[in-house]
Amino acid sequence: MISFLEIVGTMAFAMSGVLTAMEKKLDPFGVFIIAFVTAVGGGTLRDVLIGRTPVGWMMDLEYVYMIITGFILAVVFRKKFDRLRTSLFLFDTIGLGVYTLTGLRKGIEIGLHPIICIALGTITACFGGVIRDILCNEIPVIFRKEIYATICILGGILFFILKAFQLNDEIIYITTVSVIISIRLMAVKYKWHLPALESDK
Amino acid sequence: MISFLEIVGTMAFAMSGVLTAMEKKLDPFGVFIIAFVTAVGGGTLRDVLIGRTPVGWMMDLEYVYMIITGFILAVVFRKKFDRLRTSLFLFDTIGLGVYTLTGLRKGIEIGLHPIICIALGTITACFGGVIRDILCNEIPVIFRKEIYATICILGGILFFILKAFQLNDEIIYITTVSVIISIRLMAVKYKWHLPALESDK
Amino acid sequence: MISFLEIVGTMAFAMSGVLTAMEKKLDPFGVFIIAFVTAVGGGTLRDVLIGRTPVGWMMDLEYVYMIITGFILAVVFRKKFDRLRTSLFLFDTIGLGVYTLTGLRKGIEIGLHPIICIALGTITACFGGVIRDILCNEIPVIFRKEIYATICILGGILFFILKAFQLNDEIIYITTVSVIISIRLMAVKYKWHLPALESDK
Repeated sequence: MISFLEIVGTMAFAMSGVLTAMEKKLDPFGVFIIAFVTAVGGGTLRDVLIGRTPVGWMMDLEYVYMIITGFILAVVFRKKFDRLRTSLFLFDTIGLGVYTLTGLRKGIEIGLHPIICIALGTITACFGGVIRDILCNEIPVIFRKEIYATICILGGILFFILKAFQLNDEIIYITTVSVIISIRLMAVKYKWHLPALESDK
Repeated sequence: MISFLEIVGTMAFAMSGVLTAMEKKLDPFGVFIIAFVTAVGGGTLRDVLIGRTPVGWMMDLEYVYMIITGFILAVVFRKKFDRLRTSLFLFDTIGLGVYTLTGLRKGIEIGLHPIICIALGTITACFGGVIRDILCNEIPVIFRKEIYATICILGGILFFILKAFQLNDEIIYITTVSVIISIRLMAVKYKWHLPALESDK
Repeated sequence: MISFLEIVGTMAFAMSGVLTAMEKKLDPFGVFIIAFVTAVGGGTLRDVLIGRTPVGWMMDLEYVYMIITGFILAVVFRKKFDRLRTSLFLFDTIGLGVYTLTGLRKGIEIGLHPIICIALGTITACFGGVIRDILCNEIPVIFRKEIYATICILGGILFFILKAFQLNDEIIYITTVSVIISIRLMAVKYKWHLPALESDK
């Protein structure tokens, strides 16, 4: 179940990368790289930081195939994106929840402190988009608006609260992912965001 | 002594990150990430390059707490920064000296060549700021003005000269850090900088 | 033979970094770092992703000396670059071929799938330039024009086709490098490029 959602999330992240890259008028190779980085950049950074190398996508080609599929779908249907935007947003939100969970679990596997595990969940879910924005020469969107990353952090905290109650792992996983997805949907619907921090000068 | 200075340096680096990020009107999450990256980005890059993973701040939460403290202080006192700028500059300079030393020592620990150790010292002290500037969509300031990185390199050379004379380690450490701090203070006071390299066209 | 070409390629990559950096009016330290990153950034990223640490240039100082030589040559002769541009382009193209081969071989050494090996060859050859462009605050040139990376991918596919025919390794290496160099020369001569992918809005 979770791994099916991970596939959906990977494809959605790749497709959102294609969208961003096409706005910058990149060539097909550039678009593909941006799609790839958006989909696996967060997990790759996580793997590099914890020393889990060769990094994930090198050992498990399924990711590569999913990204290629997402890339082709996005390019073929690029003129219909306005109609697809809602489904894409939904898939992207699924990716957010599932990737956060994956990052949390990798941190626990190697015995890191809960704070670091939450950081790893957030990195896995959000830093593909950060690298995508840097490659496209933009200040990363998650540093400026939307509470994207904050939701991952809240999801991570919930995860460890549920763990403290010694619930069944499957239940913890499904609850965490569902709560992240629900908050994200509400955040976008009601336009929640953090105010900019300025020095008032 | 050195580890107390490292704490001061980490907080100062985090606070300088907050300052840069607020000029870009980022939201609190974005400001925190920039503070975090400024403080531990150089050491993280060093650890990744030498394969010391999970990287430093994942194994030693003291850094995380120092950064959170620096972040909160900087945000709370953000309207008084003009008055605090001198102390912040001093702390930042302490960070420069101590981080260079840390990088040099990590390189020696795993038996790398002195040239590479000096590179590691410079990376530890300077590349947090480089990553901060990239995330804020600027050409890194240390590539353009101030002799920031050059001072780390000089400090590293001094370190190995002192080592060749087989002085006591503590004396080498304190001398290196003091010389880096002194040169930096003089460099800013007397506005030393390297001229831009242009192709004269 | 191949290692002589690798030295020529490293120097050429460093010199192309110097050229890019001087257009941005960086100071000598900034120019050197850009030269360094252009020359070894791709291989460094590859080593980090596959966990071959400390990364290559830390264990083999020859790269460092080559880059310093390339840096000095480029700075000294910077006013004569217009006349040297053709030789520099030739050296850069040699670098492209040799670096791709190096990346392919590192992937095979640790038993990765051919698709991943081709990715590693492309990363080794192209991502030094990507990091250079990011540090100079540009959208990477290989995402926008020239079929630079596509040639590395074609070279990688050829490599595995030749391997499937169980040819002698030396022959495979020389053929792969020669074909990459030839296609690149033709691509520039006849201005081959991929069209931008746009969303037609």
